[in-house]
Amino acid sequence: MIIVMKPEATKEEIEHVKSVVEKHGLGIHKLSRGVKQTVIGLVGNTRAISEKQFEILDGVEEVVRVQKAYKLASREFQKENTMVEVDGVKIGGEEIVVIAGPCAVESRDQFLEAALAVKKSGAKILRGSIFKPRTSPYDFQGIGTDGLKLLEEARDATGLLIETEVMHPEHVRMVAPYVDMLRIGARNMQNFDLLKQVGRSEKPAILKRGLSATIHEFLMAAEYILSEGNPNVILCERGIRTFVTETRNTLDLNAVPLVKSLTHLPIIVDPSHGTGKYELVEPMSMASIAAGADGLMIEVHPRPEEALSDGPQQLTPKRFGVLMQNCRKVAEAVGRRM
Amino acid sequence: MIIVMKPEATKEEIEHVKSVVEKHGLGIHKLSRGVKQTVIGLVGNTRAISEKQFEILDGVEEVVRVQKAYKLASREFQKENTMVEVDGVKIGGEEIVVIAGPCAVESRDQFLEAALAVKKSGAKILRGSIFKPRTSPYDFQGIGTDGLKLLEEARDATGLLIETEVMHPEHVRMVAPYVDMLRIGARNMQNFDLLKQVGRSEKPAILKRGLSATIHEFLMAAEYILSEGNPNVILCERGIRTFVTETRNTLDLNAVPLVKSLTHLPIIVDPSHGTGKYELVEPMSMASIAAGADGLMIEVHPRPEEALSDGPQQLTPKRFGVLMQNCRKVAEAVGRRM
Amino acid sequence: MIIVMKPEATKEEIEHVKSVVEKHGLGIHKLSRGVKQTVIGLVGNTRAISEKQFEILDGVEEVVRVQKAYKLASREFQKENTMVEVDGVKIGGEEIVVIAGPCAVESRDQFLEAALAVKKSGAKILRGSIFKPRTSPYDFQGIGTDGLKLLEEARDATGLLIETEVMHPEHVRMVAPYVDMLRIGARNMQNFDLLKQVGRSEKPAILKRGLSATIHEFLMAAEYILSEGNPNVILCERGIRTFVTETRNTLDLNAVPLVKSLTHLPIIVDPSHGTGKYELVEPMSMASIAAGADGLMIEVHPRPEEALSDGPQQLTPKRFGVLMQNCRKVAEAVGRRM
Amino acid sequence: MIIVMKPEATKEEIEHVKSVVEKHGLGIHKLSRGVKQTVIGLVGNTRAISEKQFEILDGVEEVVRVQKAYKLASREFQKENTMVEVDGVKIGGEEIVVIAGPCAVESRDQFLEAALAVKKSGAKILRGSIFKPRTSPYDFQGIGTDGLKLLEEARDATGLLIETEVMHPEHVRMVAPYVDMLRIGARNMQNFDLLKQVGRSEKPAILKRGLSATIHEFLMAAEYILSEGNPNVILCERGIRTFVTETRNTLDLNAVPLVKSLTHLPIIVDPSHGTGKYELVEPMSMASIAAGADGLMIEVHPRPEEALSDGPQQLTPKRFGVLMQNCRKVAEAVGRRM
Repeated sequence: MIIVMKPEATKEEIEHVKSVVEKHGLGIHKLSRGVKQTVIGLVGNTRAISEKQFEILDGVEEVVRVQKAYKLASREFQKENTMVEVDGVKIGGEEIVVIAGPCAVESRDQFLEAALAVKKSGAKILRGSIFKPRTSPYDFQGIGTDGLKLLEEARDATGLLIETEVMHPEHVRMVAPYVDMLRIGARNMQNFDLLKQVGRSEKPAILKRGLSATIHEFLMAAEYILSEGNPNVILCERGIRTFVTETRNTLDLNAVPLVKSLTHLPIIVDPSHGTGKYELVEPMSMASIAAGADGLMIEVHPRPEEALSDGPQQLTPKRFGVLMQNCRKVAEAVGRRM
Repeated sequence: MIIVMKPEATKEEIEHVKSVVEKHGLGIHKLSRGVKQTVIGLVGNTRAISEKQFEILDGVEEVVRVQKAYKLASREFQKENTMVEVDGVKIGGEEIVVIAGPCAVESRDQFLEAALAVKKSGAKILRGSIFKPRTSPYDFQGIGTDGLKLLEEARDATGLLIETEVMHPEHVRMVAPYVDMLRIGARNMQNFDLLKQVGRSEKPAILKRGLSATIHEFLMAAEYILSEGNPNVILCERGIRTFVTETRNTLDLNAVPLVKSLTHLPIIVDPSHGTGKYELVEPMSMASIAAGADGLMIEVHPRPEEALSDGPQQLTPKRFGVLMQNCRKVAEAVGRRM
Repeated sequence: MIIVMKPEATKEEIEHVKSVVEKHGLGIHKLSRGVKQTVIGLVGNTRAISEKQFEILDGVEEVVRVQKAYKLASREFQKENTMVEVDGVKIGGEEIVVIAGPCAVESRDQFLEAALAVKKSGAKILRGSIFKPRTSPYDFQGIGTDGLKLLEEARDATGLLIETEVMHPEHVRMVAPYVDMLRIGARNMQNFDLLKQVGRSEKPAILKRGLSATIHEFLMAAEYILSEGNPNVILCERGIRTFVTETRNTLDLNAVPLVKSLTHLPIIVDPSHGTGKYELVEPMSMASIAAGADGLMIEVHPRPEEALSDGPQQLTPKRFGVLMQNCRKVAEAVGRRM
Repeated sequence: MIIVMKPEATKEEIEHVKSVVEKHGLGIHKLSRGVKQTVIGLVGNTRAISEKQFEILDGVEEVVRVQKAYKLASREFQKENTMVEVDGVKIGGEEIVVIAGPCAVESRDQFLEAALAVKKSGAKILRGSIFKPRTSPYDFQGIGTDGLKLLEEARDATGLLIETEVMHPEHVRMVAPYVDMLRIGARNMQNFDLLKQVGRSEKPAILKRGLSATIHEFLMAAEYILSEGNPNVILCERGIRTFVTETRNTLDLNAVPLVKSLTHLPIIVDPSHGTGKYELVEPMSMASIAAGADGLMIEVHPRPEEALSDGPQQLTPKRFGVLMQNCRKVAEAVGRRM
């Protein structure tokens, strides 16, 4: 961390900053008094110290963090890519892995029909939420724990891996025996108790980016899971909230190559939430692969117009089949496979 | 709800829309076939139906919600203002109520010193978080349940009412016996299990607006609490996330008069988080009162530069005293008192 | 346009709305008095009428525009794609056209070196700004009209088409004889006098999306040019301003397939401004093609570290060559060519 | 400017950075080689150098600007407040000055009626646009130069000062003889040729903040005017574009005290555009004054429902009168007058 003092900072102010630095157990590697202003460089583990604690001191102009606040998630900590592997399915390797299924588990028939359809077109993992975070208390809230047996049944019937959303630390214990992967939704990206609980689980975790999360905050959320001992985190870009109203969210594909340069963790993209419109899902899936994504999460419903949630962004099985074919061509063009 | 069909919609598409409307248990009050296009008006309780379920149907151009999705929170449901009263302190009435105290409870000395100071300057409610949501897992996470006794002690020592943050449904049961009010932080505005649990509690709840929440979503979150039976919700504008980097958040004071026109619930403002800079807290407190806020939440720390979190936005007791005096003048100018 | 009256609207208010409708020369095709509320449907050319003029009337709940406010730019007006053709280069057809060159024309040597390099790797059009909009008055403002001869010389030397930015209605007349295409920068997307002047020119125009422009506003800006008689508008997505600070802008690739569904005009992408980081330009170029873009605009500088503007986002000729090879593979995968 | 090198930066990279620094005519006041990394502090006028020119060099981690990029606009350059005075009306002093009038000059009757009404309630300056930037080419574009005589006539009839919008460098020369002040609209905040032309004029200029302008960019735009020799710049906060859809813009009142700390220029607030809803204009006017604004710009129309533009945000003369009375009380509460 580097502290830049104001040109008019007094000697006393500089001395005071030094004493605060030392109180935090940090050293001063260099104090350079320039013609115009003084710059103080710190040594030691600054990860646990907020820039704010120095910014507030009298005479301080600016504080620059040099060491990143995340450690386990960083490329510096681990140079080679993390590959998350479950039962032979590898996320973060050469293959682009597709997670597909309905937004919500609604009934046995609907879920099994969707499961068989996505399996047939080449998905490797089945998604299906039994707990649904909904803006309105009057909207469908998910079928709850009754759905656990359906998740299991769909896995047995198709051989697909299963993932579902956890919204609550209690859900982790409840859901883990039935699924292969846990999903943390965008609204819970900074539900820190949930992150910690998932970190203590042995299940791989899909962590969705929050609606208004910077890349830094996204990686800090991953760090919460990693620092509790779970190394299998899969990041998921799903669109951010901006002033644009014509799409549900703004899919930030810049995040894909940027995240890959900063962290060793795999990153997938959810163009269903990222666009909110089924017509845009196919082109944005192809774009995600071209941008370097390690996988896709796509909502597929046997009859989207009857869906209890998010109908407009769910694909029919037929459209999903076409999407898979077109994505495969892009995957090959970028030297990967599906 | 009104469904506007595309000009080119076929008779079959219109019939199909009608059948879907009826399947949802709604009636059609008027189907007007115009020169250019057909408009279908629905009757019945459309609150539990998402616009999306009609938007997805073939031939539909646009769906307009007329009935608001929130009910208990709306001005239509209750014309007169809700006044939340605890031990003689009334929020939502003529008086502008000030909640003040440190960002976090750090130690007995720090907390009691802050409590006495804010009491002296005229605050009525003491804030102090014992659980802290922090971007980094390596940052101070709050003193936890050890702080409960300190909350109680501070209340006994000062006579102030006490509020603290709950981040987790479990916290509600744990914390309720020790405090007068519960606070739901911005990051948890859509932690729906938490909202429901607070809704089942008897304690008044301060609900902070999420970083990227629209006014509609803010009121829907309040509706979650109200619909579980707790009528004492106090809304809190605390700044939203925008492209502006020079302040921590963008305090959206437009929200104050707008919210007051839409709902009967009181609304307070937190200019500490809304600006992130202690120098801006006083003018923005005054502006909040002039805009019509029913109260303020202000961070005060005996020694901000030693604060374990959010130092730059915490006021010294002395500055807080000046703020209170200046705010009082504005309160009187708008026909209220402090 | 459809006007939805409030449930409590009086008969007088409804009559007043009707009279205002008629004053605007519009007809009422249907006035449906429902159980709960009245809906008024208008007929006639509502394109020149703002929704606001009805929203303000007493008793009005909401006004819904059904007819889009742009006409010439819409798919309804022209079903088949517009193909902009200059000297055999066609934008909007099967080929993905690459526009490349330095951010700014700095000197004869720099510009010719860049021109030859981008030609060699397969670019068809050369970019080079001689007028530079800069945040600071103390920054390099472009070489100005001295650059006109350099633009011409570069065209003669390479056979590339030439485009340059116009910031001012006067520039159009000044620059047109020397270039093949005009570019309107993001900051000028709503410089309406400039749009009109470009609309009166015969040169094809590249219209960049404004930093905070919705898709609707973007197409309305194109409508300004079209409505003055110039049919050759090429839209350019170049990133929008959001809360994300880790990239210069947020490249909104959702806009590509969305725009193509709403308009017949071609759309290209500028990943140099859209990311602000040269390392991200190649993956985002590939993503743009996969999303359906008709072309790319890419900044290339012989020595980016010596660039007088935007160095961090300019590619070296060598990196640009690699980008072109990798983009070609994606183009083929989506059934196009480069 | 301070350049922080990466921990792994080589000796050659450091030497290269030094040589680039020198090529720009800057000196190195201190090069501190620390245990972990090297920090290079520059001396000289760094205002004309972009951080980007160093960020791009190999081995550079981060570049920190210490000297602000604006000079003439800064508090460091001029400690005391600038007071803009025209014919005895002083903006930036003790008095809060109100600019009011219709969005657009529509006709002689409408404009004179509005002028007399705002004069009566205490406005000091009359606004009225004759050129209107409109999203749609089919919307009312202003009455143009025919309006110049009306501006003059209204001044003669009321004694009010007159201001109008200039959208184009040519407008400055055309309009200047008829008005007391020039206004630059939000969409033109970075129309640099216009800024320069206004800078060469002798008329005071009201500079509105762009829809997506940071505070830094806002002050840089002011610097363009100042650096051409016109010292009389009045900043105007008018709302920014965010994800919030319930109001037309998000009025950023944080900007008021923040701007006053950074610059000596006066700042006023336009709550008409800042909210887009006439019901919110009065509370937000009061809030603006409490936040420290030096003035207000408010749209008033004799019959808002007949307005050719922006009807929903224009006040009736009667409502404007009430607003003035209530604002006066707040002004007194903060030690100012109206």
